[in-house]
Amino acid sequence: MRKTRPLPGSLIQRYHGWKATTFAENAAWYRRLGTEGQRPRVMVISCCDSRVHVTSIFGAEQGEFFIHRNIANLVPPYEPDGLRHGTSAAIEYAVTSLKVAQIIILGHSQCGGVQGCEAMCSGHAPELEDPASFVGRWMDLLRPGWEEVRGIADERERLEALEKRAVLTSIDNLMTFPFVAAAVDRGDLALHGLWNDIVEGTLEYYDAATDRFISI
Amino acid sequence: MRKTRPLPGSLIQRYHGWKATTFAENAAWYRRLGTEGQRPRVMVISCCDSRVHVTSIFGAEQGEFFIHRNIANLVPPYEPDGLRHGTSAAIEYAVTSLKVAQIIILGHSQCGGVQGCEAMCSGHAPELEDPASFVGRWMDLLRPGWEEVRGIADERERLEALEKRAVLTSIDNLMTFPFVAAAVDRGDLALHGLWNDIVEGTLEYYDAATDRFISI
Amino acid sequence: MRKTRPLPGSLIQRYHGWKATTFAENAAWYRRLGTEGQRPRVMVISCCDSRVHVTSIFGAEQGEFFIHRNIANLVPPYEPDGLRHGTSAAIEYAVTSLKVAQIIILGHSQCGGVQGCEAMCSGHAPELEDPASFVGRWMDLLRPGWEEVRGIADERERLEALEKRAVLTSIDNLMTFPFVAAAVDRGDLALHGLWNDIVEGTLEYYDAATDRFISI
Amino acid sequence: MRKTRPLPGSLIQRYHGWKATTFAENAAWYRRLGTEGQRPRVMVISCCDSRVHVTSIFGAEQGEFFIHRNIANLVPPYEPDGLRHGTSAAIEYAVTSLKVAQIIILGHSQCGGVQGCEAMCSGHAPELEDPASFVGRWMDLLRPGWEEVRGIADERERLEALEKRAVLTSIDNLMTFPFVAAAVDRGDLALHGLWNDIVEGTLEYYDAATDRFISI
Repeated sequence: MRKTRPLPGSLIQRYHGWKATTFAENAAWYRRLGTEGQRPRVMVISCCDSRVHVTSIFGAEQGEFFIHRNIANLVPPYEPDGLRHGTSAAIEYAVTSLKVAQIIILGHSQCGGVQGCEAMCSGHAPELEDPASFVGRWMDLLRPGWEEVRGIADERERLEALEKRAVLTSIDNLMTFPFVAAAVDRGDLALHGLWNDIVEGTLEYYDAATDRFISI
Repeated sequence: MRKTRPLPGSLIQRYHGWKATTFAENAAWYRRLGTEGQRPRVMVISCCDSRVHVTSIFGAEQGEFFIHRNIANLVPPYEPDGLRHGTSAAIEYAVTSLKVAQIIILGHSQCGGVQGCEAMCSGHAPELEDPASFVGRWMDLLRPGWEEVRGIADERERLEALEKRAVLTSIDNLMTFPFVAAAVDRGDLALHGLWNDIVEGTLEYYDAATDRFISI
Repeated sequence: MRKTRPLPGSLIQRYHGWKATTFAENAAWYRRLGTEGQRPRVMVISCCDSRVHVTSIFGAEQGEFFIHRNIANLVPPYEPDGLRHGTSAAIEYAVTSLKVAQIIILGHSQCGGVQGCEAMCSGHAPELEDPASFVGRWMDLLRPGWEEVRGIADERERLEALEKRAVLTSIDNLMTFPFVAAAVDRGDLALHGLWNDIVEGTLEYYDAATDRFISI
Repeated sequence: MRKTRPLPGSLIQRYHGWKATTFAENAAWYRRLGTEGQRPRVMVISCCDSRVHVTSIFGAEQGEFFIHRNIANLVPPYEPDGLRHGTSAAIEYAVTSLKVAQIIILGHSQCGGVQGCEAMCSGHAPELEDPASFVGRWMDLLRPGWEEVRGIADERERLEALEKRAVLTSIDNLMTFPFVAAAVDRGDLALHGLWNDIVEGTLEYYDAATDRFISI
């Protein structure tokens, strides 16, 4: 027998609250989304962090955003090696099947995954170097980024720079996917890099012309 | 120069709306979450599908749910092979660092990933058999599940059964992670399997005693 | 020997029901709350009245609300005179130790304490004027509020206005606590005044801009 | 203009959930409670702590429990000195106006107020000795209790003993109120002392015959 448990009563009560309000108010639209299929305009790749406001920050309606969330909003490079790549599968589905018009990489401040990367690369977290550490192996994606920011003396500034490196690493790796690069070149797909300060609520976007993040 | 684009004005306008309302109303709490760190009670693993209501369906506040979203809410088995496993990294971080008390696998109806799996396994989508198909290789996780439901004649029933198999596959694979199994056995972690009908707004939970999904 | 009595069997039976269901479902989370300490987002100050739904009305989980309940949800002014002030102790603990992000004053209709205040101030309850009347001395806090509403002819309207005065008296007295005023000015603490009609289930909030209570 | 803020949207949504479910299901009963007045059987005096389950632990319906919550569930002695005594006002109203049949003092484990008292009495929290410390002056009520347990070497045992002393202090002080003692002597009012382990979910009651707390 599987060791699952019943859902706590508080979540059941809250679900019924949603059913009676938000769902009831939108039932016709949700039914259409369900029967006609989704047609999201945007794919968002963000962190799993519970403090990241993926839909709320853009007032997104159901059906608007196709959302992949992983540790530190990282995209790996294109590796068609016949192995499992969950993030790449989400990107492939979004671009080739759903044909989204935009992909937003949404990074954020106080990112625990990025802090783990910093600790690992600077030799303060040997447990993350263990081949069996899933977090460590995932954060290997950001090692080249760490090399670029390691010289920043102030820890807070260094971590923020590394969080922004994570966004740019994902942008760069996205362009290694042939179907992404082709859609971008055709003008069918726009890529956006964002960084959200979760304490101040500010949002910065990556400006390619100046190679900087700029406040919105 | 990177081929990113400025964020469309409509999203910028919506961000400012969030900043002036939801963020302003919650600024003190968000600041505390940011400076003291997150302490989410629950990890939710759901699909990327834009029609899935992860936070709204439970009226979740920021800070409550640590959310991983991938195609078809699938968890792979434990494979500490030194390679990248994004989903496993998210689970490792949630269970060993954040020590969440619950993991909810939230499946849903009309799942495109599950439909792709059905098409691939029944021979109607040879392109997904291509080793270079990320979606195909990801959905391989559900092949054993498909074997169990392939005999169901009605297509709609078969797909719903397969969507629920995806939830149970994830539950079963979760238990192959030693740190998950240990936390479940200690009573520190509860696993929940849910399936949401996005058209009707109904929610079913997996009941281990009867091995069935039951309406809430 | 103390004159306490064993708990009635019905309450014991109900406790076991809670233990077997709600507690069992949430055991992991309650254990974490117990060992790591509480981190409530909100302090609620409400009336002791058995008909006020402090947690239920907001679907609050254990751990979310730090709750002080007294007669008529009144906050006294700041008086650091070395004497005992139970309400002030609760506020001091919530703001300076727990650093809650919000304080909600939750008033309600049909409030017996407010009715007592009206009777006392209008000369119909001389027993409440007795220096030994704890209820009378407590409701003295609302005498200035009564002066502001005494001219309202309709009794029901007058009582509702006085219930809302109780909420505003508490808000105003809260701001006399230096640590409250400082946290509000820093943006670390938000104050909210609410009034709940317990018969109709409606909820009104105090809108500072218009100086009125407005339906939610 | 008062510095209040609008209620966060998440709480508004959750309120509407309550309105549409719990309130709607109980509207007739709530209306009767509202128009006929409350008639609670029990007064509960518990701590403000967000982890204490006052109504849930006994599956209490609205209208059953008249609830006073303060720091460390303390009752001061009877002092009819014409000054404000919020806890005494709540007790007076419950016993003389509402004529409750039981008063439950509900203590609990991991009590921050009790920990503060221990720190203050043992000389580790001089700031609580400040006359202007509301928490300190409130916890003075438990100084005699601390003298009785200070010899217990193990800190955890000592704190638990002090938490139980807080319950007994409240029971003893309750009996100094003439109207409480008279109701108890007439058999109209029963007093109960309880202590809840919030980590384990266990409940103990004070047994006067053996002068011990015994598991339920």
